[in-house]
Amino acid sequence: MADHPARAAYTVESLLAVTVRVFNERGYDGTSMEDLSRAAGISKSSIYHHVRGKEELLRLAVGRALDALFTILDEPDATAGRPVDRLEHVVRRTAEVLLAELPYVTLLLRVRGNTATEQWALERRRDFDHRVAELVQDAVTAGQLRADVEPRLATRLLFGTVNSLVEWYRPGQRGAEHLPDAVARFAFEGLRAR
Amino acid sequence: MADHPARAAYTVESLLAVTVRVFNERGYDGTSMEDLSRAAGISKSSIYHHVRGKEELLRLAVGRALDALFTILDEPDATAGRPVDRLEHVVRRTAEVLLAELPYVTLLLRVRGNTATEQWALERRRDFDHRVAELVQDAVTAGQLRADVEPRLATRLLFGTVNSLVEWYRPGQRGAEHLPDAVARFAFEGLRAR
Repeated sequence: MADHPARAAYTVESLLAVTVRVFNERGYDGTSMEDLSRAAGISKSSIYHHVRGKEELLRLAVGRALDALFTILDEPDATAGRPVDRLEHVVRRTAEVLLAELPYVTLLLRVRGNTATEQWALERRRDFDHRVAELVQDAVTAGQLRADVEPRLATRLLFGTVNSLVEWYRPGQRGAEHLPDAVARFAFEGLRAR
Repeated sequence: MADHPARAAYTVESLLAVTVRVFNERGYDGTSMEDLSRAAGISKSSIYHHVRGKEELLRLAVGRALDALFTILDEPDATAGRPVDRLEHVVRRTAEVLLAELPYVTLLLRVRGNTATEQWALERRRDFDHRVAELVQDAVTAGQLRADVEPRLATRLLFGTVNSLVEWYRPGQRGAEHLPDAVARFAFEGLRAR
């Protein structure tokens, strides 16, 4: 093993990092196992040693983003307290997860398609959206969110705002640690000075 | 002409409508003149009668979205009054234009690429963003927008929110006429009840 450190070091983790980059560049449909083998600098059979194929790599990659997102919903600040505070926690943490797992969340947000894995990812995204929509509804019912923006629309605008970070945020950008708070302020307090 | 009403009726306008749909479905790079000819139900030479090729169709299509967006900046409510009110007008109208010209704006938002036309479109988008960013800065300077969201970030979040409508809005959806107001309320007043 000491003779081949680079090769020996290849794990599912490092293979996934390369895979996600290539999927985001070329699209999932446009990527072949050949492309992945070339980008990773290892043979296709080495890749097949780790996974059954391209679709399993997609499942692992978007699964990583989904797991990180669903974990948020079980955090103490998301499960106890006033609905509006729980919602704000979820929005802030969703932005944090997006920044921390940028390529994985980017890939998740681009999933459209007909393979079983893509359908599964879309359904898990919808589940997450529904869980957040319930929180929005609870906060509206409690009189903590304005009633003149319909709850379903409010949920969509919240995700629209958070998810738009993938359009321009680049890893290592200055001030990234302030972004989740700024997004939450924007969404809950609005831009107008008081 | 009366013998071939469908064919005689083909104008640049109707050709564009088909083109934009196909570009949005397959991507600009993934669309051939053959695809356009098939989708439009007219021969390639009939298309060449109207335009020089695929890139000119792209220029006409994104030009339509860009013209509609830039027109907003010259409207009376965008040029006179308090900066915050001018900005709110621009945000509301940008949402209106997005809904009215949905396929054209969707195509514009997806432009990434290296042809001269794609570069031109990206540059015009940046110009528009800069014009709005100036308005944001004016409103912050006037104390009308909160100072704890950095102006450049505020501009990005505003566009992120408005542009996210293309992800889920479908033409003819109920309540569409209320969307631009709801987006402006969300962005300027925030979701929290007062």
